[in-house]
Amino acid sequence: MKITHIEHLGIAVKSLEEAIPFYEEVLGLKCYAIEEVAEQKVKTAFFMVGQTKIELLESTDPEGPVGSFIEKRGQGIHHLAFAVEGLQKNLNYLEEKGIRLIDKTPRKGAEGLNIAFLHPKSTFGVLTELCEKPKQ
Amino acid sequence: MKITHIEHLGIAVKSLEEAIPFYEEVLGLKCYAIEEVAEQKVKTAFFMVGQTKIELLESTDPEGPVGSFIEKRGQGIHHLAFAVEGLQKNLNYLEEKGIRLIDKTPRKGAEGLNIAFLHPKSTFGVLTELCEKPKQ
Repeated sequence: MKITHIEHLGIAVKSLEEAIPFYEEVLGLKCYAIEEVAEQKVKTAFFMVGQTKIELLESTDPEGPVGSFIEKRGQGIHHLAFAVEGLQKNLNYLEEKGIRLIDKTPRKGAEGLNIAFLHPKSTFGVLTELCEKPKQ
Repeated sequence: MKITHIEHLGIAVKSLEEAIPFYEEVLGLKCYAIEEVAEQKVKTAFFMVGQTKIELLESTDPEGPVGSFIEKRGQGIHHLAFAVEGLQKNLNYLEEKGIRLIDKTPRKGAEGLNIAFLHPKSTFGVLTELCEKPKQ
């Protein structure tokens, strides 16, 4: 398995409208994109920090994954996404190793990336995403 | 405020002995250091992922901060640490902006860094650490 870097860190917030000014005006980061990911029932805001993105996640549906996360645990870090080379190959490898996959084959995530999630029960409590840029 | 990159991501685990093989043998990352931080009541294990470190945290005391985190919320991502330039200056700035500081002045963290924590109530639920390399 070849992880090149942390692609992004997903952070669940109740309201992008309230959280973006904190990230911009207090932390001094710049929001460079806002995107709705209908399939995940979230609206996302992206900030670049070195080679890693912070992806703020506002739920668009209380029963979506981020809505129920906030309901149970409050706002906070939701998932960790690694950039990998060869996403499907890595998923096959992880399955052989006994890791529980949420997605057995890649699907489309924000910013057009191919993504797949691993189950936190298999990854010491960290909801883990693997991402790969689609080939041009 | 000038954040250069994500210095590390702190992940609370019940047992380094169980978690390190997952990070090494499954994710393919290399544990390059193990260090006890007595003041924080943790034993830590470090892995480099691109420009960011993953810092696994095992509590050495059930009543320490990581022990009580795991008791309440289970294993998972514990804190997010930004590398900054001018730590004390940034703490003064954040306090002026109304951000609640856990540490008003820097103290020593793992790997000899100067560090300070911000309270998650002021940072949309994310326990946030600022780090600066001490001047040589």
